[in-house]
Amino acid sequence: MTAQSDSRPLIMIVNDDGITAPGLRYLVSCVAADAKVIVVAPDGPQSGKASSITVEQPLHITRQEPFEGAEMYAVSGTPVDCVKLGINTVMPRHPDLLLSGINHGSNSACNLIYSGTMGAVMEGTQLGIPSIGFSLLHHSMSADFSGCGSIVRSVVANVLAEGLPADVCLNVNIPARCTPLGIKMARGGKGHWTDEYVRYEDPHGRPFYWLSGKFVNDEPDNPDTDNYWLARQYATVVPVRPDQSYLPAIEPLRSRFEK
Amino acid sequence: MTAQSDSRPLIMIVNDDGITAPGLRYLVSCVAADAKVIVVAPDGPQSGKASSITVEQPLHITRQEPFEGAEMYAVSGTPVDCVKLGINTVMPRHPDLLLSGINHGSNSACNLIYSGTMGAVMEGTQLGIPSIGFSLLHHSMSADFSGCGSIVRSVVANVLAEGLPADVCLNVNIPARCTPLGIKMARGGKGHWTDEYVRYEDPHGRPFYWLSGKFVNDEPDNPDTDNYWLARQYATVVPVRPDQSYLPAIEPLRSRFEK
Repeated sequence: MTAQSDSRPLIMIVNDDGITAPGLRYLVSCVAADAKVIVVAPDGPQSGKASSITVEQPLHITRQEPFEGAEMYAVSGTPVDCVKLGINTVMPRHPDLLLSGINHGSNSACNLIYSGTMGAVMEGTQLGIPSIGFSLLHHSMSADFSGCGSIVRSVVANVLAEGLPADVCLNVNIPARCTPLGIKMARGGKGHWTDEYVRYEDPHGRPFYWLSGKFVNDEPDNPDTDNYWLARQYATVVPVRPDQSYLPAIEPLRSRFEK
Repeated sequence: MTAQSDSRPLIMIVNDDGITAPGLRYLVSCVAADAKVIVVAPDGPQSGKASSITVEQPLHITRQEPFEGAEMYAVSGTPVDCVKLGINTVMPRHPDLLLSGINHGSNSACNLIYSGTMGAVMEGTQLGIPSIGFSLLHHSMSADFSGCGSIVRSVVANVLAEGLPADVCLNVNIPARCTPLGIKMARGGKGHWTDEYVRYEDPHGRPFYWLSGKFVNDEPDNPDTDNYWLARQYATVVPVRPDQSYLPAIEPLRSRFEK
């Protein structure tokens, strides 16, 4: 390792689709030329894992073949496990930046709460690392990520240069099947799910269920929301605060609960 | 079912320690006399699962023996799966209240983010149900919950009577090994973990790791925080907002990212 390479920013990359996912490889290729990159990603799919941690099982971390100069490590756990175990075992120092993704599928609106991609980002934020999640609005493993490059490089360069507000991370969603028209700041839109389960019967006549459902955007005409702009072919940047304590409700509720 | 029993509030109860956990049974016993109670809980331990959902596997929901008049259903999934599948399959109508717990162990401070107990509560909130999580600061399955009863009944009666602010739920923590001196409103305190993993070697000399760690309270002297009051034998009520979009950061960041 030369002195020159040591001076490059150190970027940790995580995801929730697993270490072989094309979206992860694309993200590495966006930043590997100008940074020291270390990937610590799940050894298989971990979608929908939110901020879950593995407490009842041990974890393995296994070195893989390098990719475009990046060190690659696979972890037998969740995205948050990857962040925690990576920081504790293979990262040579505190990273300058943590990136997660690029997720195969949207993490917009209120669905952020289930996202393993964003679980890793929030863990990075709790550890004091400027952290960004990227998601493409296309679930397929053969999704075309080529429209993401300019967005990723622009946001990463900005955060490396100027940082982020304390305790705040970014949730970046990118529309599929087009080159984005631009980037808009937004909040996560409100919505709800209908027809959440498909019901089956096993060969003995007992029912079982598989999560499915349709997402209904409850504010499709509100330009403050991410889904409004994503539907209009813009990428969106939503500032996210992992700490969910809601301070404005403390005083109004004090007389009701304190004793 | 008589007309009288139909007029009682309908309470859904979930947890993350599993349907056989004593804390769940204690919570049922606190409210069963004055409500129609339906329990939908994981069929085994689901601690640390946050808001995770099961997307790669089907789910089963199985009726169990009733307990103190409550219907009991076990789900082969996470706490959020229990809420979603319970609402979609066994709840006769939208519940008046969702309770989660009583968790065997603390969900105070910034550790809320990993909590399956609070994952279920946040899912209830997203579905428009007034929702409350209860946790006792004692991990043991033989923990003594008898100090929790007055706190649980007081908070539940208040929320049934007056509701909660829209999109806000409650995270209630209760000190162990004493009768609480009272209840304090607070925010989740800040802290961090050290010595997070214990390292082992398998019989072939390969390392593996188990999550452990010590929690360090970063603001032990701040009476705005839950951990301050919990250390002084008070129960704490923290208002929590599942939506993590951080609106105050949108305008300051707009000129940096929009294009």
